[in-house]
Amino acid sequence: MNYRFVFNQLGKLLVVLGAALFFVAIAERTFDEASGRSAIRALLTTAFSGAAIGGLLWWRTQSTLANLGRREALLLVALSWIVGAAFAGSPYYFWAHMASGVEPNHRFLSAINCYFEAMSGLTTTGATILSDIESIPRSLLLWRAFTHWLGGLGIVLLFVAVLPSLGVGGKKLYQIEAPGPSPEGVHPHIRETARTLWFIYMGLTVIQVVLLCLAGMDLFESICHTFATLATGGFSTRNASVGHFNSWIVDVIIIFFMFLAGGNFGLYHQLIRGRWKQVLKDPELRTYTGLLVGGCLIVSFTLVEHPIVMTHGTEIEPSVTEAFRQGFFTTTSVQTTTGFCTSDFNQWPFLAKGVLVMLMLVGGCSGSTAGGIKVIRLWIAFRVMIAEIEKIFRPNVIRPIKVGNSAVDNDLKLATLAYILGILVLFIAGAGAIMVLEPAEHECSFTTAATASIATLCTIGPGLHQVGAVENYGWFSAPSKIILITLMALGRLEVFAIIVMFDPKFWKGV
Amino acid sequence: MNYRFVFNQLGKLLVVLGAALFFVAIAERTFDEASGRSAIRALLTTAFSGAAIGGLLWWRTQSTLANLGRREALLLVALSWIVGAAFAGSPYYFWAHMASGVEPNHRFLSAINCYFEAMSGLTTTGATILSDIESIPRSLLLWRAFTHWLGGLGIVLLFVAVLPSLGVGGKKLYQIEAPGPSPEGVHPHIRETARTLWFIYMGLTVIQVVLLCLAGMDLFESICHTFATLATGGFSTRNASVGHFNSWIVDVIIIFFMFLAGGNFGLYHQLIRGRWKQVLKDPELRTYTGLLVGGCLIVSFTLVEHPIVMTHGTEIEPSVTEAFRQGFFTTTSVQTTTGFCTSDFNQWPFLAKGVLVMLMLVGGCSGSTAGGIKVIRLWIAFRVMIAEIEKIFRPNVIRPIKVGNSAVDNDLKLATLAYILGILVLFIAGAGAIMVLEPAEHECSFTTAATASIATLCTIGPGLHQVGAVENYGWFSAPSKIILITLMALGRLEVFAIIVMFDPKFWKGV
Repeated sequence: MNYRFVFNQLGKLLVVLGAALFFVAIAERTFDEASGRSAIRALLTTAFSGAAIGGLLWWRTQSTLANLGRREALLLVALSWIVGAAFAGSPYYFWAHMASGVEPNHRFLSAINCYFEAMSGLTTTGATILSDIESIPRSLLLWRAFTHWLGGLGIVLLFVAVLPSLGVGGKKLYQIEAPGPSPEGVHPHIRETARTLWFIYMGLTVIQVVLLCLAGMDLFESICHTFATLATGGFSTRNASVGHFNSWIVDVIIIFFMFLAGGNFGLYHQLIRGRWKQVLKDPELRTYTGLLVGGCLIVSFTLVEHPIVMTHGTEIEPSVTEAFRQGFFTTTSVQTTTGFCTSDFNQWPFLAKGVLVMLMLVGGCSGSTAGGIKVIRLWIAFRVMIAEIEKIFRPNVIRPIKVGNSAVDNDLKLATLAYILGILVLFIAGAGAIMVLEPAEHECSFTTAATASIATLCTIGPGLHQVGAVENYGWFSAPSKIILITLMALGRLEVFAIIVMFDPKFWKGV
Repeated sequence: MNYRFVFNQLGKLLVVLGAALFFVAIAERTFDEASGRSAIRALLTTAFSGAAIGGLLWWRTQSTLANLGRREALLLVALSWIVGAAFAGSPYYFWAHMASGVEPNHRFLSAINCYFEAMSGLTTTGATILSDIESIPRSLLLWRAFTHWLGGLGIVLLFVAVLPSLGVGGKKLYQIEAPGPSPEGVHPHIRETARTLWFIYMGLTVIQVVLLCLAGMDLFESICHTFATLATGGFSTRNASVGHFNSWIVDVIIIFFMFLAGGNFGLYHQLIRGRWKQVLKDPELRTYTGLLVGGCLIVSFTLVEHPIVMTHGTEIEPSVTEAFRQGFFTTTSVQTTTGFCTSDFNQWPFLAKGVLVMLMLVGGCSGSTAGGIKVIRLWIAFRVMIAEIEKIFRPNVIRPIKVGNSAVDNDLKLATLAYILGILVLFIAGAGAIMVLEPAEHECSFTTAATASIATLCTIGPGLHQVGAVENYGWFSAPSKIILITLMALGRLEVFAIIVMFDPKFWKGV
């Protein structure tokens, strides 16, 4: 293991994060409402200490070797998230301890809460430990939303550009329509792909911010909500989440961009190259759209004239159009693993809740910022199961499973099924661990534990019952929070990078 | 598809079942307590009509062709269970309509309830729709227990002798240590294996009956409980299940035979041939024993001094020995998918309930009368997942997975993972369907629906909440009962035989 290289890269990351924090602290000045000096000071303290530590690490570990091996890459990915979250959570902690007038039991006073919030941000989960979001200074809220955006960008780059080139994480899963390694070797190809992805991500960000501003949101809220949408994160600046704005046009814009964010960014790369036909034929995109529309319709129909409570507190008996608005918004928010809310879906009919929980597990497309199992994996698993059933009475018939033009080989089938089972095992283990760890006085229901486990593992954010749309994660005990933080990291990095670190063989020589 | 052959065999089955009913009606006479003429009349009516219909079918479909094809075998297996249950449930229905003094809302007056009880018997599930078992005539209770015994025998023969010879259901899963097809062809080998299995099953039955009698149970109860133990069924003759007897020695005997019934009968076949070493090395037996003992210990420790309610109504705060007695009995009962109860485990601590539900899914060994996913499948899946994790950072290392001396090939790995996923999908679909189908006034909790789904799919019997140890399944609506009946059949036949019938290709020519 080339630790020198890993720490060198980690140093660079900290410097970049420090710069990002500095940028946020400066940007905040342009907004009217002042955040108070403590928040700015907290941001700048973290920025400078991050840059200092990162710079030192960078400088001390310089090496001529630039060989990104598979194991180094995995370790780097895992450490980036683990260390990055500690760094990203520091402003919250510093602010709570520096500002005057902070309540003595404010949740940011505890380090584990700050780490939870930061991990939830970077992994684009959007689960919050805050009960009153609006009391937090705007500069911190901007940073909080920005962690989503950075995390989302990181994930897209990682899964579409970096990992496939290393052959990690099902190369074929993410490179189905992409060309093979370019003749100049791997690196130039990564760089070119990464540049295009960055361009797409930036472009979508600008467009959504402009649209939200045109819809009447102020610039600050537009930026924060755009960051949270494109990263399928879900942090809002408002206690009532997107329900606060209560605007048809805002809901529609956000639904559209959540849908895009849950799609494969690799496909958008293809779109730019003019390959419309290939994109429209993509089986994952079709299945994703089909599942999403199907889910939206079922959920919407169950809501017609069923009394529902909005996140801003009003109770309504929705007309057909209102039911469809709520149904489409929430279902898209949940399947794309964003987690924005307009209505308290914890009180919806069982069928709607059942569909939502299933779609939480499904998640978005590979190569998107969304979490969950991913549509392509379920598509492959479904095909494998159909083939297995036929094998029972026709053992000699072999039907190849194809994704686009390439056949899915046995190794990929096995890896896919093992992955899905692994996620289910983690989900059950997570739910069980929370139930066992929570003290009796919290009266944590099994539904709470189970949906908290899914909602973090699949990076959604809100679950049901005590972690429902109008609740938060602040009340969990510290051990449970550690479990939930682990689930976020495991789910976000598709288990790979984290889980290998528990294998003793990983640390031994090749 | 050779329908003629299938119906011919089905006719034979009905004649055999008719004979069994006749035997039960006669046997009952030897017990002191008279069951009343109606019960005997109900049994004899079914016996004769079964024999008549079966005989007619047998006679009308005689053919010289005796070619048991793969598709014919699957259809026959499925129809045997579906038609067999209708037949086995008839005595309950006839009795309720013929006897005088039956309450006007007695559950056996409804055909679906009788079918449920019969399917629960034949599939060795042990879920009952009866609230007062002790009010049912003894002859019917004897028949009810006998359906377990017949179902258990059928399953062992099917999975150890018949299906592996056809290559259905993971030949290697059940024939790991057994010799290959004998030189005389398949049929003599099946017959010889079947004869030995029958001998083992009979022998164990006689031994357990004698031991229970020596422990002080009367002959009738001994026979009924033996039938239910060896088939891992769980129907008792008492409302308080085995808890009624409140006897240490009875509990210990039943624990021991439940453990045996959950083991691979193919191994007992090996034991008779003197292959002790091979049997003790069997990885499935070792894992099964390890999981069971581990589960028993965890559950027992949670019970020490935790107030528990026995099925006969007393509340106790168990001492260490009492906690271990309850923990070992219930855990063994649940993992072997028997479902006998001595204590209302619905009120146990969450950790105990969690372990029990997990073990419900695990189930017993392949080639046993137990249900569930089966230990060997989970063992293979676990090995596959470990191998997949190593593949992430060492893509070129290939480590073969071995069961005993034979390597598990890729096809079997894939089939195993697909099977486990399929069971989980069925479990979730079953729970969801019940939630949606149950009318609101039943207030069916999700725990109830979920554990009812597991408890039928894995052929356990009791679940939690409204289907807990001291509850029953009679209150479910008819549509839910149909779902539960389907789950029992799917789980019992390891999905294979039933699920293929939903594939249109199955019905078309080869």
